[in-house]
Amino acid sequence: MSGSEFKIIQSYFSDPEQENRSDIILGIGDDCAIVAPRKTSQLAFSIDTLISGVHFPHNTPADAIAYKALAVNLSDLAAMGAEPAWFTLSLTLPGELSQNNWLGKFSQSLFSLAKQYHINLIGGDTTHGPLSITIQVAGYVEPDAAIKRSGAKVGDVIIVTGGLGTAAMGLDIALQQSADNYICLSDTEKKSALNALNYPKPRVIEGVNLRGIAHSAIDLSDGLYADLGHILKASNVAAELQLENIPLSDTLSCLNQEAAWEKALTGGDDYELCFTLSKDDWPQVSKMNPQFTAIGRIVSQQPDQNNLRLLKTNGEELMLHSRGYDHFG
Amino acid sequence: MSGSEFKIIQSYFSDPEQENRSDIILGIGDDCAIVAPRKTSQLAFSIDTLISGVHFPHNTPADAIAYKALAVNLSDLAAMGAEPAWFTLSLTLPGELSQNNWLGKFSQSLFSLAKQYHINLIGGDTTHGPLSITIQVAGYVEPDAAIKRSGAKVGDVIIVTGGLGTAAMGLDIALQQSADNYICLSDTEKKSALNALNYPKPRVIEGVNLRGIAHSAIDLSDGLYADLGHILKASNVAAELQLENIPLSDTLSCLNQEAAWEKALTGGDDYELCFTLSKDDWPQVSKMNPQFTAIGRIVSQQPDQNNLRLLKTNGEELMLHSRGYDHFG
Repeated sequence: MSGSEFKIIQSYFSDPEQENRSDIILGIGDDCAIVAPRKTSQLAFSIDTLISGVHFPHNTPADAIAYKALAVNLSDLAAMGAEPAWFTLSLTLPGELSQNNWLGKFSQSLFSLAKQYHINLIGGDTTHGPLSITIQVAGYVEPDAAIKRSGAKVGDVIIVTGGLGTAAMGLDIALQQSADNYICLSDTEKKSALNALNYPKPRVIEGVNLRGIAHSAIDLSDGLYADLGHILKASNVAAELQLENIPLSDTLSCLNQEAAWEKALTGGDDYELCFTLSKDDWPQVSKMNPQFTAIGRIVSQQPDQNNLRLLKTNGEELMLHSRGYDHFG
Repeated sequence: MSGSEFKIIQSYFSDPEQENRSDIILGIGDDCAIVAPRKTSQLAFSIDTLISGVHFPHNTPADAIAYKALAVNLSDLAAMGAEPAWFTLSLTLPGELSQNNWLGKFSQSLFSLAKQYHINLIGGDTTHGPLSITIQVAGYVEPDAAIKRSGAKVGDVIIVTGGLGTAAMGLDIALQQSADNYICLSDTEKKSALNALNYPKPRVIEGVNLRGIAHSAIDLSDGLYADLGHILKASNVAAELQLENIPLSDTLSCLNQEAAWEKALTGGDDYELCFTLSKDDWPQVSKMNPQFTAIGRIVSQQPDQNNLRLLKTNGEELMLHSRGYDHFG
């Protein structure tokens, strides 16, 4: 760490209001941070990088970038049912961003979200280069209680934790693509779609509450179709979705029915959880979480069928135009 | 993680020869990795990013980049006296590097170094963009045994673990700078300087052995002058170095005496350790580690003096032309 880097970290990333967790022995400022993990828990780790022009448009404000970089990592913890504890940050900045209090806005937004989820920044690295943000998070899970992708069982109900597709519409709006399709949206609705893109709410509490109940889980970063596909592959099972049951966000009412489904299935950045659980547990979970929606069921793999079938009420199968989501890069 | 990223990770970063440590419950492939840390230890974390054109020249080979990205992080663990355990990797790649087996060479070199230090890759992220590598390492330290920057005491002897300045000459050679100064070097010596730059040996074993003996330590990434300065600041002490005692690498014999000292003091990338210990412990440590050299002592701060004085045998003080090292970016 060079002298100039040291000054950046000193001034922006030593938040005096960051209440030190009792499990942190030594925070930012040495060669390593030192923590004393709870002896009764296991630890979950995830690392994610966001690159300007790939994971967010170049004109994204500093506070949204900071928020999202931490939120997508919290979402990975949520998908395992882990409780956030500490994170490290590596920030690569082009020279011009050291002006106009960019770093001040970035760090304020970062610490604000961190505080909300009781997670502490314990280390960092800052370098010069094209804007990118890498965050690694660590969190606690009880021994063998982590919710894996590989635990889905035939007969499970498939659930999503909220409405889908808004963030993908927000991205279209941010990039001023498909503008003609969205003239039906009010300015308020457009703003709400942009907010869904820039400030996804990580489902941390929901994830922790699903420990011991959900058989499998994943967070929706690349779209329901691709991400549920990872569960199916890891669990060696197949799935049938009832298209009419997929919770479409209100903003999708701009699109015709099939385009709306396609957006909800292949649009990324929702950061809702998709999980499976026994159908016997669903009534109770549903009652406690009215925003959760059952969208289909896990079935056994059939050699002559798609692993993930998208069914309309009339029994017809929907074929998607695109399946994956490589962000917009 | 998108479909294409998933394939990259699957093919290159799931090393079948990586022996899974018994403290890893779930490795690469889910939203998080899960580990079960030893109950008797604390954990040390560090994160470091290397950017092409900033931390290494654009023409650096894939295997050197992988080696160095992990080695500099291992060096941070070494500086705390921590024992390597797990690491995560975030790799940002421009499109053209998916050709010519770049990833194959990168991952082979990464796993080879990892194996040597019994550290396992437990998670990763791959994205498209200008080449950069972020690694976070985690390691074990016994409770309250981590060697901090802040523990230097007046009267301590200051030690470095090996010769200084070779890597900085290697950088000059890689960039074809100061070529005139180096005509006295043989091709073998030039190659050895380049190797010092590209393949620094992290002092992991030395660091672990210094627990309970060293009062303070840091690894030399930005040059002895700047890095020892961090120890002095954190410990509220000053230091006097005996210039004639600084172990200059053989390749520095090309330079005149003061230029050689300047290179050894301000050149970066040596990744030796600089530590302090009681002068009573030095004879025993010295006997067991003939490659260690005492270069000065910790003194109390004086209001009218530099915190770090560079003394010749005749008592004269050397004034440096530059003090820090912002790599070559």
